[in-house]
Amino acid sequence: MIERLFRDELRVVNVGLEVFADSFDAAGGTVQRTDWRPPAGGDREIGAALASLINHPAVEQANGRAFVAYLDAQPVLQGIGTARHDIPGMGERMILHAGPPVAWEDMCGPMQGAVTGAILLEGWADDADGARTLAASGGIVFEPNHHHACVGPMAGVTSPSMPVWIVREAEHGRTTHCNLNEGLGKVLRMGAYDPDVLKRLRWMADVLAPTLKGALERHDGLPLKPLMAQALHMGDEVHNRNVAASSLLLRALLPALLESGAPQARIAETVRFITGNDHFFLNLSMAACKAMLDAAHGVPGSSLVTAMARNGVEFGIRVSGTGDEWFTTQAPRVRGLFFAGYSVDDAAPDLGDSAITETAGIGGFAMAASPAIVKFVGGSAADALGATAEMGHITLGRNPAWTLPVLDFQGTPAGIDVRKCVDTGIAPVINTGIAHREAGVGQIGAGVTRAPLACMEQAVTALARQI
Amino acid sequence: MIERLFRDELRVVNVGLEVFADSFDAAGGTVQRTDWRPPAGGDREIGAALASLINHPAVEQANGRAFVAYLDAQPVLQGIGTARHDIPGMGERMILHAGPPVAWEDMCGPMQGAVTGAILLEGWADDADGARTLAASGGIVFEPNHHHACVGPMAGVTSPSMPVWIVREAEHGRTTHCNLNEGLGKVLRMGAYDPDVLKRLRWMADVLAPTLKGALERHDGLPLKPLMAQALHMGDEVHNRNVAASSLLLRALLPALLESGAPQARIAETVRFITGNDHFFLNLSMAACKAMLDAAHGVPGSSLVTAMARNGVEFGIRVSGTGDEWFTTQAPRVRGLFFAGYSVDDAAPDLGDSAITETAGIGGFAMAASPAIVKFVGGSAADALGATAEMGHITLGRNPAWTLPVLDFQGTPAGIDVRKCVDTGIAPVINTGIAHREAGVGQIGAGVTRAPLACMEQAVTALARQI
Repeated sequence: MIERLFRDELRVVNVGLEVFADSFDAAGGTVQRTDWRPPAGGDREIGAALASLINHPAVEQANGRAFVAYLDAQPVLQGIGTARHDIPGMGERMILHAGPPVAWEDMCGPMQGAVTGAILLEGWADDADGARTLAASGGIVFEPNHHHACVGPMAGVTSPSMPVWIVREAEHGRTTHCNLNEGLGKVLRMGAYDPDVLKRLRWMADVLAPTLKGALERHDGLPLKPLMAQALHMGDEVHNRNVAASSLLLRALLPALLESGAPQARIAETVRFITGNDHFFLNLSMAACKAMLDAAHGVPGSSLVTAMARNGVEFGIRVSGTGDEWFTTQAPRVRGLFFAGYSVDDAAPDLGDSAITETAGIGGFAMAASPAIVKFVGGSAADALGATAEMGHITLGRNPAWTLPVLDFQGTPAGIDVRKCVDTGIAPVINTGIAHREAGVGQIGAGVTRAPLACMEQAVTALARQI
Repeated sequence: MIERLFRDELRVVNVGLEVFADSFDAAGGTVQRTDWRPPAGGDREIGAALASLINHPAVEQANGRAFVAYLDAQPVLQGIGTARHDIPGMGERMILHAGPPVAWEDMCGPMQGAVTGAILLEGWADDADGARTLAASGGIVFEPNHHHACVGPMAGVTSPSMPVWIVREAEHGRTTHCNLNEGLGKVLRMGAYDPDVLKRLRWMADVLAPTLKGALERHDGLPLKPLMAQALHMGDEVHNRNVAASSLLLRALLPALLESGAPQARIAETVRFITGNDHFFLNLSMAACKAMLDAAHGVPGSSLVTAMARNGVEFGIRVSGTGDEWFTTQAPRVRGLFFAGYSVDDAAPDLGDSAITETAGIGGFAMAASPAIVKFVGGSAADALGATAEMGHITLGRNPAWTLPVLDFQGTPAGIDVRKCVDTGIAPVINTGIAHREAGVGQIGAGVTRAPLACMEQAVTALARQI
């Protein structure tokens, strides 16, 4: 054996400390360097927790159950309601927000701006100063959307009078919700609250929502997974690129809309709004993803991530096996493409529940379907393909319902495993919009960011305690 | 020098006869084989003609002019008319057809079927036998669409009462036309003519066309190149995949449609038809491509292909520098994916004017934009990328108005040069539908084929005579 080893030329792979490779170089050898590092920066406690979970039969079995529940889920658009009537546990003086829990005084600028706008919209205060005073007084209950079977993009602010999509998950019978998308730029979810923003929100409640509601009442329910599958074949990643999905949604609702008996002028206004907003489908995509992941939530022992969400201060995740506990850390800044006149110095940290799409295997995970997204979030087509390939290392499997044509119809990588994230050091990639850090301004760009691994490390430690 | 040559290991590339490589193999050497063959199978006359054209300053200059005219062209959808009123030179007892000229008795089955249907539609005969008798009697003038600033998919049959798209090329002031798309399956353009086919065509003339015409009259004209550019970013190649372009067209016309004053029921029928036909945009894509290539047509000395078209018997091309002459050869059979119960034995040879899309740099040339097309025409995602790469070897340049995201927004290869086709032996790739070879059946599949190089060889010879 030893003889054979030395007969051939030595071909060496170096893992870990560079110094071994360096001495091999110095001796004239050929060495392949890897960029492997010990998990969790070599932290002993996390490393031990991770070791106890990897290949653990209970975890594998739980993940199998959770992943199948995710795969089997069939989110169906049922209708449009209002937050007040349809969101479970919604209170009369309650405002829901994106991400893990956060108090008014700790909220980032754009979330405070959106809350200010929501208070004005609800008529609880007469002006912005009054709204802020009310918010600070403790007279309003703030809770995360995720605690109410709901999600919301960016600030994610949901107040009682807002119309919400109602998505029913046919396989497991749960319902999820999300408000309706306002478009880009100066919008509530990005922290703007000037009169135009509030006027648009009132029009959405008074015209858009009832008109669409009428169409949906003539509909048997619109299955969202096949629509999203078709959008993935049409260049969307269904998070920050929704131009195909928005068109397909309009196409699907149009016949019922035209036959709903709504006045033609209202139909025309509704159609003009939707055709002018290529992001219109985003909020439905989020509600569908939330429904699929809720189906997989709460399986004891499972290391599957069921939510990633940011409140602009903290980034938080929830994991199937650890229930409703949040594992949080500081929200990162987003590198990206900024609108003219803005830079990363103007940006709020990562914000919004929309990372629920990546959690479900689309968005950054499906960027291979959407090379055109790089014009919005930055990078090259190779980066887009690379992101999807890389995410395959940290997921439990692939979703055969969502295929990627350019990868010969491979399913999108789906089901983030906290163990794999910590073990490989690969953090989930997220495509996202970027809000100005101050209240009142709005969107200033879009980009690509990563979920902080500190969240996954906490989850690994917590899960190991259970097993 | 010689010493140096023999000091290093020999690395040999073999071009042409295999026998040289074989003897090198036998001697234990390493040889890289190329599949180069002499142009035109070694034909001396064509070879000499080709040699006289390659790098000829007059040809280069003419191609520069023709290519710029193609690039500058701006096709704009202006409205809907009828063949009778709007197609230049359309006669009262005239039927236009796809491809180069062909007499009734020589037409392929599906074209005879489509003509039979058109005669019944026009009320020139009471039944199919009567229609065939009339067609054979010489009582009807048959001419190619291409002779009348028109194109038509598959059989391409255009009769006086049919509604036609009117596309105006803003830069050079020409107008082109195409009839409206009926959908897939049993349709006139595939040779079917049963009562359902005729009923649909009557509905298209009576409801669809006037309803859309009303919307277009409230419109300033819809620029088609940007819409097609967006469709290429949404997974269409805008020949056999038009799902995005059809949606974008509907989106663009919807507001005007809803405000046109047409009865709501007619609008609903129109919308239902368009949303049910993912190929609806094809005929507009063809008229737009025809407009762009007509702009480049008739530049003396130019070797740019300005039309590829098939009548189901012959494949023909036209070249800018040789004017309205057709260079024809036998139309090939199409390999592809067949609907259940059919095979290549049932297929008519290659048919239709729709290869005008490949002539303009989309369709098979832009397959890199459309990996999902392989589910319709066969092959893998790598084949789709490969086709676009290969076509770059036979085109004058790239079209910066039509970019391909997966190739980092490179323009689509465009402007087929007959010289490059003959010199490289690379034939233009064409995505196409497949009709049953008998009249009356309809579509039986779709696939990928190649333009026969014999057409390009004739064009090279004809062009060399002029120079």
